[in-house]
Amino acid sequence: MENKGISKAVIKRLPRYYRYLGELMNEGVERISSHDLSERMHVTASQIRQDLNHFGGFGQQGYGYNVAYLYEEIAKILGIDQKHNIIIIGAGNLGQAIANYTNFEKRGFIIKGMFDVNPRLVGMTIRGIPVYALEELEEIIRREEVQIAALTIPKMRAEEVAEKLVAYGIRAIWNFAHTDLHLPDDVVVENVHLSESLMRLSYKLVHMDSVSGEMLL
Amino acid sequence: MENKGISKAVIKRLPRYYRYLGELMNEGVERISSHDLSERMHVTASQIRQDLNHFGGFGQQGYGYNVAYLYEEIAKILGIDQKHNIIIIGAGNLGQAIANYTNFEKRGFIIKGMFDVNPRLVGMTIRGIPVYALEELEEIIRREEVQIAALTIPKMRAEEVAEKLVAYGIRAIWNFAHTDLHLPDDVVVENVHLSESLMRLSYKLVHMDSVSGEMLL
Repeated sequence: MENKGISKAVIKRLPRYYRYLGELMNEGVERISSHDLSERMHVTASQIRQDLNHFGGFGQQGYGYNVAYLYEEIAKILGIDQKHNIIIIGAGNLGQAIANYTNFEKRGFIIKGMFDVNPRLVGMTIRGIPVYALEELEEIIRREEVQIAALTIPKMRAEEVAEKLVAYGIRAIWNFAHTDLHLPDDVVVENVHLSESLMRLSYKLVHMDSVSGEMLL
Repeated sequence: MENKGISKAVIKRLPRYYRYLGELMNEGVERISSHDLSERMHVTASQIRQDLNHFGGFGQQGYGYNVAYLYEEIAKILGIDQKHNIIIIGAGNLGQAIANYTNFEKRGFIIKGMFDVNPRLVGMTIRGIPVYALEELEEIIRREEVQIAALTIPKMRAEEVAEKLVAYGIRAIWNFAHTDLHLPDDVVVENVHLSESLMRLSYKLVHMDSVSGEMLL
């Protein structure tokens, strides 16, 4: 898995390439030129060449990229060529939305359980996924060898619960709580701050006229 | 509203500043130095000075930023000093999660309705917000002067519904569908692609050891 020399910005774009390559595979496309991919993805062909030439799998000029090869190489870089066990903390609407999203499993993210403090939810199953009490966190994490936790609880309790998760062995937190977590350096966090996303949309809306077609963000 | 010369990168960080400034106000803090803000936000003081000096409202060296002033200035830039009417397309778990999130209203985003094709959901209310049939889309958008639509439906129907929304007067789409929308230049889109976010987390997890403490993304 060679990722030396691949910049942050490229890594950030890889999931989008992965999505388009997956769609091409579904359509039975075996090779695609940077030009055709550029038209689909609405980015420049030169950007695509710069990004994807890190991965090899491209033939002579005019021959195009090998779709399946690139798809697999990107999966390796993203770590989705292997399975990851995941739990969801919070079985409210957002937690249930994640549990119901079957695409995650296709990408190798296996949801092993959900956790909630609400006794009415504990004991239920959602799409076959059991909802446990928070007291069972340590046992399930260790038994199911869970690495990743999605945190969909209010921000007041997020830091405290995150610290417990880390103590029980979680290495990666997908944080939907509207706060920044301060955790040890060997724990990775990916934030999904919906309020901030909505504010960025509002910014674009208000400044649309001054943006003249091209998005600022 | 002066935003000439403020870079994309700064704009992208503004919602996070806004959140921290809001927390400071709640704590009754009137002024804060770039040093203290830097410790809270885990970014460098020099980054903060570079970002916030666009907005004025800072006093002499050592005197610190006026929290309330900065908070208001950033709200103006983000367009959240005014109200925006919003609808949610899709009354499933994700749509309901958004509807239940009261913070959006505090920021001026007023949810005027939800829409779904499921007859079991139509006619319900969620936290007082009515669920309408998709057929009522045009009428509600026009009557309630809705500018923003959150799109929480499967990707197969996303483009088609987005085109309708635009035809009925929507100017901004908050897109949770796992696809890129291709819409006229005068419509703004903010994507929340959860699968891609989870893949970025997976990347960080798999490459954590080579990242030595500091996050790559």
